[in-house]
Amino acid sequence: MKIAVVKEIEVGERRVALVPDAVARLVKQGLEVWVEAGAGEGAYFSDAAYEAAGAHILEESTHLWQAADIVLKVRPPREREDGQHEVDLLRESSVLVSFINPLGDPHLVQRLAERKVTTLSMEMIPRTSRAQSMDALSSQASIAGYKAVLIAAAALPKFFPMLTTAAGTIAPAKVFVLGAGVAGLQAIATARRLGALVEAFDIRPAVKEEVQSLGAKFVEVQLEEETVAAGGYAKEISEAAKLRTQEVIAEHVKLADVVITTAQVPGKRAPLLVSEDMVAAMKPGSVIVDLAAEQGGNCAGTEAGKDVQRHGITLIGPINLPASMPVHASQLYAKNILTLLQYLIQAGAINLDFSDDIVDSTCITHDGSIRHQRIQEALELAAKQTSEVRS
Amino acid sequence: MKIAVVKEIEVGERRVALVPDAVARLVKQGLEVWVEAGAGEGAYFSDAAYEAAGAHILEESTHLWQAADIVLKVRPPREREDGQHEVDLLRESSVLVSFINPLGDPHLVQRLAERKVTTLSMEMIPRTSRAQSMDALSSQASIAGYKAVLIAAAALPKFFPMLTTAAGTIAPAKVFVLGAGVAGLQAIATARRLGALVEAFDIRPAVKEEVQSLGAKFVEVQLEEETVAAGGYAKEISEAAKLRTQEVIAEHVKLADVVITTAQVPGKRAPLLVSEDMVAAMKPGSVIVDLAAEQGGNCAGTEAGKDVQRHGITLIGPINLPASMPVHASQLYAKNILTLLQYLIQAGAINLDFSDDIVDSTCITHDGSIRHQRIQEALELAAKQTSEVRS
Repeated sequence: MKIAVVKEIEVGERRVALVPDAVARLVKQGLEVWVEAGAGEGAYFSDAAYEAAGAHILEESTHLWQAADIVLKVRPPREREDGQHEVDLLRESSVLVSFINPLGDPHLVQRLAERKVTTLSMEMIPRTSRAQSMDALSSQASIAGYKAVLIAAAALPKFFPMLTTAAGTIAPAKVFVLGAGVAGLQAIATARRLGALVEAFDIRPAVKEEVQSLGAKFVEVQLEEETVAAGGYAKEISEAAKLRTQEVIAEHVKLADVVITTAQVPGKRAPLLVSEDMVAAMKPGSVIVDLAAEQGGNCAGTEAGKDVQRHGITLIGPINLPASMPVHASQLYAKNILTLLQYLIQAGAINLDFSDDIVDSTCITHDGSIRHQRIQEALELAAKQTSEVRS
Repeated sequence: MKIAVVKEIEVGERRVALVPDAVARLVKQGLEVWVEAGAGEGAYFSDAAYEAAGAHILEESTHLWQAADIVLKVRPPREREDGQHEVDLLRESSVLVSFINPLGDPHLVQRLAERKVTTLSMEMIPRTSRAQSMDALSSQASIAGYKAVLIAAAALPKFFPMLTTAAGTIAPAKVFVLGAGVAGLQAIATARRLGALVEAFDIRPAVKEEVQSLGAKFVEVQLEEETVAAGGYAKEISEAAKLRTQEVIAEHVKLADVVITTAQVPGKRAPLLVSEDMVAAMKPGSVIVDLAAEQGGNCAGTEAGKDVQRHGITLIGPINLPASMPVHASQLYAKNILTLLQYLIQAGAINLDFSDDIVDSTCITHDGSIRHQRIQEALELAAKQTSEVRS
């Protein structure tokens, strides 16, 4: 069975699906691994390192796509410079393992289904403890959370830590983290490491202990409804609950030197948590890093990929932070993929047991059809919107 | 007595010589403080805040320069956009307190002497415990050291801290700090906060304990000569000692993910500590931050104000890092100046007792002459070089 690692073509993407170490593990199991020349370049893994790990290096990527039984990628397949779409390069009944963004781009899923490709979407790994080591959303989110703090600290006109110097005492920076998922928790931990005073807010009361164990204060809002959706993600809440939440958030945003927002709802626009009024009430020179900028933003006025100034506040909307730390991002992602492959491959072949929740959740196209109701619905919604625009 | 705080005109300079808090202290002592409109803007201190602290705000800067008994600045005086030189705006026998860069730019000192200005150079505050709270080189260097680590962490394709994740363990980054002065020590402390393994090198064995107390390993070189100059700065060493030192540095640079260099010799080109060969021997993706880039650089190939790629290594030569953290940089600088003023001002007038080592060292021009032998020599050397070029 041939496993192929292709070079990412998305602009700015420096990650690679397998690092040499992970290649060595697969080769040791008797699998054949082909790596496109230069695939690891952006992450500082040389072709020579892959070869030393037992991979074959192939210059020509079209052939690699077509010959592979399993293609491993980081970013969803897309159109290449030569006009060909990567999906069209995949062989029928081959397996693609990658981030796919299935709820955000259901048309791509349809295209993969039509191509009769078996697609394993890394976003759809269930959030269970059994699948934890395959959870690429989590591994990459921890990088985003860490990087968000470094970006904030670099932009803040103040120190993070409290310092006692000959020229007086420097007060520690106040950091307020909105959303205590994986990115939020890593942001809390990093800001604490740098010596900031950290507060964190999440609508899920269950994360309180974890927040506190990192040395941060948990900001609580008493709500009378359920705030946790299936899969452990935060759920959308009622209007009344939103108002109460906004009041509490406003109080804490106002006192913060740095606000880091991390709230996302899969397949939907990110919730707006920090209003323009809240931004205007902050101390001039304060910094907001909006990790949901690409999903529409948690903060009014943030723009994906830009630093903007509003009311004397620096609003930063970073894009694809994991790609800015490609060595460790690739190492973690490769481990996620490796674990998934080792789980699925038995006796040299991929075994898809759809009664297994990991397989059921992760496999989004198979045998020519889309396997998930939610993706089907997203597709139908998109088709309906298009026809409404046309009529 | 009128004290004036003028707006900095150097491009990118966001600091201000006094913050409102320091103004309030001076006003309370019965002194008159005038602040140029917008002087604190870059550091997020509004004119209103200065007014609330008891300052008078003046729109027109020329008048401010001429009316002042004491002018406070951050950066050395320079030519303005209208072609006038700030030195020419100073009233005869007024006092200028500022960074002056007297050994690097002796002509400016000559100009100040000719203008019959009393110049207190913040670089010349002696490094004694009595003058510690006036030591602006130290207070600003601590910002540079902190920022250098943030810059390195942002550029490194890896995490700094060791992390234990569901997708495996991340090894901590290795940081090697060259020069354990104020900037170096703050770099060590910050890298340790972020969880890196830190090694530090300095030719002065006396700093060993301080390095170790910050949790870093002290890299030792056994030399048979004196390495500490008057004032606590590192001294230039012999060729043999340099070779031995280079060998040791090379060994440690090779293993580092991040190298931060901080070695400067006042008034001279910074020593070259990291050669091109050493850079080439590092792991691809590693990062060097050269804090001496503006003084010629400690590392071969660094360029002031630029990020360059050499042998797969990112070489960063930041410029004026304190200005990138203007709130706290100004707060500390203002405290340094405030302490100096409070020390010198008696009964509403500046009292210059040249038998006092602080006054003797800091006052570089007075009554029409240059007071320091070293600056005189620098001036004569510059004149000689110019005439050699001409002949």
